[in-house]
Amino acid sequence: MPHTSREVHLVSRPEGLPKPTDFALVERAIKDPAEGQILVQNLYMSVDPYMRPRMTADFSLDAVMDGGALGRVVQSRNPRFKEGELVRNGFGFREYFLSDGRGVQGLEADPDLPLTVYMHALGGTGFTAYGGLLEIGQLKDEEQVFVSAAAGAVGSVAAQIARLRGCYVVGSAGSDEKCEWLRAEAGLDAALNYRAQPIAKSLSAVTPRGVDVYFDNVGGEHLDAALARINTLGRIAVCGMISGYNDGGAPVKGLAAIIYGRVTIRGFVATDFLAVHDRFVSDMTGWLKSGQIKYQETIVDGLEAAPEALIGLFKGANSGKMLVRLAA
Amino acid sequence: MPHTSREVHLVSRPEGLPKPTDFALVERAIKDPAEGQILVQNLYMSVDPYMRPRMTADFSLDAVMDGGALGRVVQSRNPRFKEGELVRNGFGFREYFLSDGRGVQGLEADPDLPLTVYMHALGGTGFTAYGGLLEIGQLKDEEQVFVSAAAGAVGSVAAQIARLRGCYVVGSAGSDEKCEWLRAEAGLDAALNYRAQPIAKSLSAVTPRGVDVYFDNVGGEHLDAALARINTLGRIAVCGMISGYNDGGAPVKGLAAIIYGRVTIRGFVATDFLAVHDRFVSDMTGWLKSGQIKYQETIVDGLEAAPEALIGLFKGANSGKMLVRLAA
Repeated sequence: MPHTSREVHLVSRPEGLPKPTDFALVERAIKDPAEGQILVQNLYMSVDPYMRPRMTADFSLDAVMDGGALGRVVQSRNPRFKEGELVRNGFGFREYFLSDGRGVQGLEADPDLPLTVYMHALGGTGFTAYGGLLEIGQLKDEEQVFVSAAAGAVGSVAAQIARLRGCYVVGSAGSDEKCEWLRAEAGLDAALNYRAQPIAKSLSAVTPRGVDVYFDNVGGEHLDAALARINTLGRIAVCGMISGYNDGGAPVKGLAAIIYGRVTIRGFVATDFLAVHDRFVSDMTGWLKSGQIKYQETIVDGLEAAPEALIGLFKGANSGKMLVRLAA
Repeated sequence: MPHTSREVHLVSRPEGLPKPTDFALVERAIKDPAEGQILVQNLYMSVDPYMRPRMTADFSLDAVMDGGALGRVVQSRNPRFKEGELVRNGFGFREYFLSDGRGVQGLEADPDLPLTVYMHALGGTGFTAYGGLLEIGQLKDEEQVFVSAAAGAVGSVAAQIARLRGCYVVGSAGSDEKCEWLRAEAGLDAALNYRAQPIAKSLSAVTPRGVDVYFDNVGGEHLDAALARINTLGRIAVCGMISGYNDGGAPVKGLAAIIYGRVTIRGFVATDFLAVHDRFVSDMTGWLKSGQIKYQETIVDGLEAAPEALIGLFKGANSGKMLVRLAA
């Protein structure tokens, strides 16, 4: 029995902030699985800032976009997968898909945790925060840490891991409500609303001992603010530079600080530290169950809401992880 | 018998390009050495781009400036030093000085090499190039390499070491004459006059296989040009950012390239790799004697010429190492 699936296609490369008309919602029929295939229904899909540069660089036009998703196997003709099994996959932006199993991983979800945590704290964004801070940033206990976009899906996890390591942690966010959550719930030492005053000024005021590790999600003025406060042998782990994604790059002027400070700036993606993935799952499961790591979710419903959800990331519409619920 | 020594003092912190009036030539009497002291006469002193940020940041006003120098012990009351012995020291910008031996190292100069090579290829600039390229840049044989300010004291050595490692080497410089030297004498694969056309355009044209290691002496547009060409897992060793020293930092817009490329940008100073100094001296002595590494020197005479020599660095007045001869 063929299924009708809807998909989101990229139909034009955005100039600046993406517009709804850069996307199209397309219906297609999905056949029953052939021998060796599975049919997956996606339950949740992710929208993430990294998708913006890929819309310019390498997502195909007039084709379905890719992204992280969590689905359920509804029909299986592949012995590796059982019907009803949960699967992580990289085939977001669609309701159903057929697969021979490549790019699809079975998920043993912990019954004591909500399923959605596998889309953020225990998913790609949480792992990015964990490895980015500990492996790329080489965080040491009790260091001075600054995390930008600290109320976001990656930043909120990075900031709280640093706090768990006994660090002094400063985060930035784009509203007083987000900053209040960072202080009251996430337990940060200071939270800076970068829309209320220039980040360079506010960061300077709350970092009397400088910054040893800056976890960068923003680039531009945030990176300059961190460079002005960076300590000798400091490390800057660059996860993202959202401030420049829509206009070709936000300028940074203070890079010379890295010379005498002998600072390392390192860009990374999560595949750089797959070797620590098992340790991440173990640590993070424990932190979530004990309540030591808190999270926020912004969930919108229906595939048709995915383009606006993605656009909303660049306006700060999300608190924590932005998810699209496709079925549940 | 007291000596009269002249010194160069910093008398005002420059705004932008330093002016001759930011410096003063001061005469002072130097006593005979006390027990445990030596009297040193400097023969050569160095002017280097790094001095510009220090004139703003931490050189004391109305005091003699510091810098690398090569001198001779003219009187010794310290058993560690013999009269007539050559000594490297950090007490440039003066003709004579007394020392208890701290900051002064005896030099066994190879008689088959000109003494001045110990002020550049076998001195601080050569060591900076060697360690910066091999230790910080983690250069591998046959990689694609870009060196900015490649006709300068540091850049010319870095570029030639890369060539000796079988790399494809592109250098930039500020005149056709310097570029001609880089191609004809230093053996680079390509040399780009950044004053003739924008460096981003010319670098792109000569790096069909991208850039694995960028040795940065310039920052600003040069760094952006390199970021646009950097390969996955590329390394950027930041030795200097001369383009921004006189105006508070040249903006860089293309940093987001480091994220998906998983690029490391690392600032350094030569003390970061003292562990390889013996190997450097051995390698470089061999390369100079065999003629495998070429150099240029720009030598001006007399301490009174030191301020203009330093200012000249920012106008490209030097080919290779800029030295001031104080006595010889």
